[in-house]
Amino acid sequence: MKTPRFAPIPAALPATVPFTGPETLQRRLGRPFAARLGANENGFGPSPRAVEAMRAEAGLVWQYGDSVSFDLVQALAGRLGVTPGHIQVGEGIDGLLGLLVRLMIAPGDAVVTSDGAYPTFNYHVAGFGGVLHKAPYRDDAEDPQALLDLAWRTGARLVYLANPDNPMGSWLAGGAIEEMVAMLPEDCLLILDEAYAEFAPAEAVPQISADDPRVIRMRTFSKAYGMAGARVGYAIGHPELIAGFDRIRNHFGMCRISQAGALAALGDEDWLAHIRTSTAAARDRIGRIGAENGLRALPSATNFVALDTARDGAFARQLVAALETEGVFVRMPGVAPLDRCIRISCAPAPELDVLAETLPRALARLRHPSHP
Amino acid sequence: MKTPRFAPIPAALPATVPFTGPETLQRRLGRPFAARLGANENGFGPSPRAVEAMRAEAGLVWQYGDSVSFDLVQALAGRLGVTPGHIQVGEGIDGLLGLLVRLMIAPGDAVVTSDGAYPTFNYHVAGFGGVLHKAPYRDDAEDPQALLDLAWRTGARLVYLANPDNPMGSWLAGGAIEEMVAMLPEDCLLILDEAYAEFAPAEAVPQISADDPRVIRMRTFSKAYGMAGARVGYAIGHPELIAGFDRIRNHFGMCRISQAGALAALGDEDWLAHIRTSTAAARDRIGRIGAENGLRALPSATNFVALDTARDGAFARQLVAALETEGVFVRMPGVAPLDRCIRISCAPAPELDVLAETLPRALARLRHPSHP
Repeated sequence: MKTPRFAPIPAALPATVPFTGPETLQRRLGRPFAARLGANENGFGPSPRAVEAMRAEAGLVWQYGDSVSFDLVQALAGRLGVTPGHIQVGEGIDGLLGLLVRLMIAPGDAVVTSDGAYPTFNYHVAGFGGVLHKAPYRDDAEDPQALLDLAWRTGARLVYLANPDNPMGSWLAGGAIEEMVAMLPEDCLLILDEAYAEFAPAEAVPQISADDPRVIRMRTFSKAYGMAGARVGYAIGHPELIAGFDRIRNHFGMCRISQAGALAALGDEDWLAHIRTSTAAARDRIGRIGAENGLRALPSATNFVALDTARDGAFARQLVAALETEGVFVRMPGVAPLDRCIRISCAPAPELDVLAETLPRALARLRHPSHP
Repeated sequence: MKTPRFAPIPAALPATVPFTGPETLQRRLGRPFAARLGANENGFGPSPRAVEAMRAEAGLVWQYGDSVSFDLVQALAGRLGVTPGHIQVGEGIDGLLGLLVRLMIAPGDAVVTSDGAYPTFNYHVAGFGGVLHKAPYRDDAEDPQALLDLAWRTGARLVYLANPDNPMGSWLAGGAIEEMVAMLPEDCLLILDEAYAEFAPAEAVPQISADDPRVIRMRTFSKAYGMAGARVGYAIGHPELIAGFDRIRNHFGMCRISQAGALAALGDEDWLAHIRTSTAAARDRIGRIGAENGLRALPSATNFVALDTARDGAFARQLVAALETEGVFVRMPGVAPLDRCIRISCAPAPELDVLAETLPRALARLRHPSHP
């Protein structure tokens, strides 16, 4: 008796995963991390109102969540000044990216992204048989002209751009993205991943009509709203495109508790302001900790900071591993030359204290391997 | 400017959805349902321990959930006497069915199910370009021999069987399923949907080795565990098959709060026993309410009861609509001859009181349309 064979596309996929989760790393380490600074989670936490709403909803979890996330969609539409038909709520940007790739990409279709950008997007493209083409970063930022050139050259159906960017923290002016949209090939859709938009300066957010059929924007409650574990993201786009999700999505897939939490979080503007202030302060402090250790902080419009080791990927990987051994979870870009950096998420002071104490030790260990 | 076109498979899909959610129906009705008896939710609710665990976890929702649901998988493996490699946790059986279809089905591949069985499975098969072949029910139960015959005739790669069955509540003896497995064509996988297994008599659960590569079983926390809104299901199967999910699943897709709730729910055996007792009592009461109104209850091994109107689908549809107008949410099978029945979920006494009061009125209205 053999296991029935997989369909051709999954049969050809590698068994690798985009990221190893921090819990898995902790189990290998044998103890909890003292500082969880690797997944761009928001350790300042969700709005207390969101926590309260989720606690209140827990007893109602015997009911399926609303299959159209009506209240949340209404609230988002009101906030964004669009109609509910312009919005699709989904299980985080990760879930929405998977659905969007499935909606747009047939096997063999070309897709463009930056070399070193979000691996989970690449995972979904491969997962549906798309063919990835990668443009290099330019000065540690995604390069709209290079992405455009590649899209024209390959006949791409999707172009992925994160602004602000992950993993570098850099950002493009909104105007540069608007110009890029104007130059997109026909029948090519720009995925503008704005997971970190709430941390960015206003001029980093382009003015694009939600009725523009060439762009779909992705936002999330995982970052500024501090609800990564709840799995709530949303897409903003042309209603005909948004309606496409209903053909393929898991209609009852949204957790009921998460919906309630996101709705409450959206209503707490004071908490969002507090998060922005706390994150900016943490960003500065990570910069100072880096500087004290000879690592330059790249400018960041996000809730993380790329610290430049001024060495290569092998060195940065050793540094990540050394920090992990010390109980500090950080990550790093996967591709040269970005991978000379390590990426550190903003967090409350006690965790950054641990970083400040640990980073010199980890670096010393790399420079003097015999050091205890 | 046009919206970029969809890929061929989604472009050909209808814009329909498997189910209209009760919240949508309530918004149409203009008020909340007085009795929510349509989605086979478990109104007796989750274990208080699960609620407590979810409330405690809410403050930690800034962290992504464990991407491998380690603790929950360990607990399930221990409970089931299998290894963790035999189990895949996912976003409800709905989510797992979608992934499994994607893993196994290339466009044009044959898939077998029963005519009138779970629509969401059919939705996923269509969504990946599979070709559905449907065997009729026999005496209001799924018919293993008819499914087998059809699988052999069509060269099916997947056969779907729910035991106990939804929407009829009927069940097959475990031995009948074991015999069916022995006769499956090579390279054909049986999906055994056991969403309602915890409500069924022991003899309805087949003895199938988790190492048998011809079967994958699906279980859920949505029904007996009362956590439909949390979106936690699991598949049990051969480790090579289970490992396939890692190639395509949304690795960080599991809600952190839901994972904590499921783990706690699994540990509360007393609550599960209480749910079984309460559900059996509610099943009996729905049968009595049916009998008082001339509607025969079909035997059920689930947390719902099919009441036979002894009329046709048009009549049953009118009855469902009349109940809805009265504030009672029920559903019904979608296909003749099953659609002569209405399907009523078990629930606490106050909601069944509403049913007892409302059903005669709804029936009277159908029999005498001028009745106020």
